Amino acid sequence: MTNKRIAIIGAGPSGLAQLRAFQSAAAKGEEIPEIVCYEKQDNWGGLWNYTWRTGLDENGEPVHCSMYRYLWSNGPKEGLEFADYSFEEHFGKQIASYPPRAVLFDYIEGRVLKANVRDWIRFNHAVRWVSYDTDSSKFTITVHDHNLDSTSTEEFDHVICASGHFSTPNVPYYEGFESFNGRLVHAHDFRDAREFAGKDILVVGSSYSAEDIGSQCWKYGAKTVTSCYRTAPMGFKWPDNWEEKPAMEKVSGNTIHFSDGTTKDVDAIILCTGYKHFFNFLPDDLRLKTANRLASADLYKGVVYVHNPKMFYLGMQDQWFTFNMFDAQAWWVRDAILGKIDISDVSKTEMLADVKERETREEADDDVKYAIRYQADYVKELVSETDYPSFDIDGACEAFFEWKRHKAEDIMGFRNNRYKSVITGTMAPVHHTPWKEALDDSMIAYLQN
Amino acid sequence: MTNKRIAIIGAGPSGLAQLRAFQSAAAKGEEIPEIVCYEKQDNWGGLWNYTWRTGLDENGEPVHCSMYRYLWSNGPKEGLEFADYSFEEHFGKQIASYPPRAVLFDYIEGRVLKANVRDWIRFNHAVRWVSYDTDSSKFTITVHDHNLDSTSTEEFDHVICASGHFSTPNVPYYEGFESFNGRLVHAHDFRDAREFAGKDILVVGSSYSAEDIGSQCWKYGAKTVTSCYRTAPMGFKWPDNWEEKPAMEKVSGNTIHFSDGTTKDVDAIILCTGYKHFFNFLPDDLRLKTANRLASADLYKGVVYVHNPKMFYLGMQDQWFTFNMFDAQAWWVRDAILGKIDISDVSKTEMLADVKERETREEADDDVKYAIRYQADYVKELVSETDYPSFDIDGACEAFFEWKRHKAEDIMGFRNNRYKSVITGTMAPVHHTPWKEALDDSMIAYLQN
Repeated sequence: MTNKRIAIIGAGPSGLAQLRAFQSAAAKGEEIPEIVCYEKQDNWGGLWNYTWRTGLDENGEPVHCSMYRYLWSNGPKEGLEFADYSFEEHFGKQIASYPPRAVLFDYIEGRVLKANVRDWIRFNHAVRWVSYDTDSSKFTITVHDHNLDSTSTEEFDHVICASGHFSTPNVPYYEGFESFNGRLVHAHDFRDAREFAGKDILVVGSSYSAEDIGSQCWKYGAKTVTSCYRTAPMGFKWPDNWEEKPAMEKVSGNTIHFSDGTTKDVDAIILCTGYKHFFNFLPDDLRLKTANRLASADLYKGVVYVHNPKMFYLGMQDQWFTFNMFDAQAWWVRDAILGKIDISDVSKTEMLADVKERETREEADDDVKYAIRYQADYVKELVSETDYPSFDIDGACEAFFEWKRHKAEDIMGFRNNRYKSVITGTMAPVHHTPWKEALDDSMIAYLQN
Repeated sequence: MTNKRIAIIGAGPSGLAQLRAFQSAAAKGEEIPEIVCYEKQDNWGGLWNYTWRTGLDENGEPVHCSMYRYLWSNGPKEGLEFADYSFEEHFGKQIASYPPRAVLFDYIEGRVLKANVRDWIRFNHAVRWVSYDTDSSKFTITVHDHNLDSTSTEEFDHVICASGHFSTPNVPYYEGFESFNGRLVHAHDFRDAREFAGKDILVVGSSYSAEDIGSQCWKYGAKTVTSCYRTAPMGFKWPDNWEEKPAMEKVSGNTIHFSDGTTKDVDAIILCTGYKHFFNFLPDDLRLKTANRLASADLYKGVVYVHNPKMFYLGMQDQWFTFNMFDAQAWWVRDAILGKIDISDVSKTEMLADVKERETREEADDDVKYAIRYQADYVKELVSETDYPSFDIDGACEAFFEWKRHKAEDIMGFRNNRYKSVITGTMAPVHHTPWKEALDDSMIAYLQN
């Protein structure tokens, strides 16, 4: 056991959960394998490691960050709290329910600083290629160390891919994009809403990025916001200067043409058209191909790659639950590697049947509450099979249900609500300033409650 | 010989020159090896394959294009004309001397369409990794075919790296970038100057990107252009609304602070801070590391990788000469592979001495005319050793010298001048519209002479 070597790819929320999972076993006196975590960026946090950079980073690597300056959590923190490290433990007090980016980064970092796992991470290391040798049953990882500008390879017994799936933008082409005269940007490269003050903007899409980036731009003074959808409108009670349109058909000059025959002149097009699962370091026999859904393709228990069960993936599902689901997965993967959960006798047929069952069950109902409960059940299932601290997952669901209701009531005001922690049982305070008036998103400003 | 397999990485001007070089030998009845050219994009042309996309492309790969919509050649076409395919042959007439992007793309494409080499190229193929096995003396290339979303490997006897070095931006950090409220973009991601009409813009840098992007924005209605330099100003006779400043020291809000204590409020910062030689598919033993200079490090004759002479690089130098220099290199590399030029008995010591001699000679004088003549001598040297059609390289130098004089006279008017072809001896016509009034950069508009 102790001779095993484990590679974790990525030190974002999922990869850090995996480090914490192993550290927590070690802290209980268990022998753990050697852990190497490769991180492309110069710091941990994954998406939460904010940068002003877009496109390619200082090392020439694709920028991982899809976040923007004034991002606040778009769901209540009570739905993502770590069961082993509460917000109250970190901040010394209970805080309001929709923390800005910097506050959540601080919280994520707090747990792993306490766990003292930073030395397991090799920063500025871009994984170039992973291969698996069936004779030796080993993985070989080729990595580019940007600190030394040098490449090398190492062997591992298991690979845990935790590189995320909200960093490679899905960027569709529409007729006229090549001759649009304004700013044309995917949400991945959106950074500062103030750039769009006084502007007419179009947000393309009807999911979380469209809703939140449009709301940001509205909050920071966009003249008008137009959003457009392919299947259904978001349907919130928008402010007067926000209009929902059906699908964009084409662009001519700065004029957008919609499928209902109407047009709108805009200064900027922001493509909120989603992300791709993208792994430029994996060969066909190790590379996950899945839609962004709750029941990922080809992952037994949502984490074991059925075509090579020595390879694991974390956080590859679409997400209602986030940090605590990554924890549930990381603890489970840890125990599978430690042999405390035995997957050696699970056949590929059984694994595929497990995947199929999850898919069928996901597809049984398209109601939002059903989907939230579905993923809650998944988290419960994994938590029950490890020593991850059990917590009131049904209570977290209730916070999500309230959140949905609060959004329907007031899309520009839902972040003024508060919820009860399912970890500590404490009610969050009302935030000192309504979201739409809180232009300063710094941690200092937010924590003044 | 005919059993050899050759990989060319990239189907831009250099890679296409290599295809044309082999095709021209075949057309003369010579036996040539099997050629496979891997191209990441869905079309040929390299940098000249314009796209509205920025950041990551439709396949999730870094966008190669660093060009922008209204780019016109920034040097006279008489300095880059193919010796085996004149502008007159392609367009059926002589054309004006500073063609826009689309016109030059058409010209590049014309030659390779005539040569019928498109079938040698595998489009949408991103090279993931190259390795060399000393036992078998073979290269193994791992490639991701985005058409099939599938990875595979193939073996080759030689690899010719022609992936360019103006696609991976060098993006420095300055204090305050993280809280700048405007648009912050590297030249690599600059696309449409009209976006900056009416704006105050800062271009950071004093080389060709700064000069040309600033000029573009000025032409298309920027309110003011400010440029800043670290070592020396560009020193042209700028329009009244263009100011050169010394180095940027920091940014606070939207205010730029310069090293002379002055400040300027701007809406956008455009970083014209250059590019890096970047090869994310090469291990240490094959990867070129060089500054952007005329005498590239580690390349014997400017093309043979001294640490593994089975590997070649094209176009890795800084460039006065472009298309015709790539040709000279491609013809030379072809003959080295065909054995017509014998490099098998050139020792590593001799190769390193060749590199050293070129470096020393480059460094002997920092005069611009010296540099142009230096690279002209390099082109002459290679051309003289192959059957590439000889042409009046000294005449091309004269066109460059005139160009430099024309820029010093009138930076917003130099493109109104014309030069004589050194291939056909014909004088170019005066363009029908002064550059600063020619807002339509389409091929149809340009060719109306």
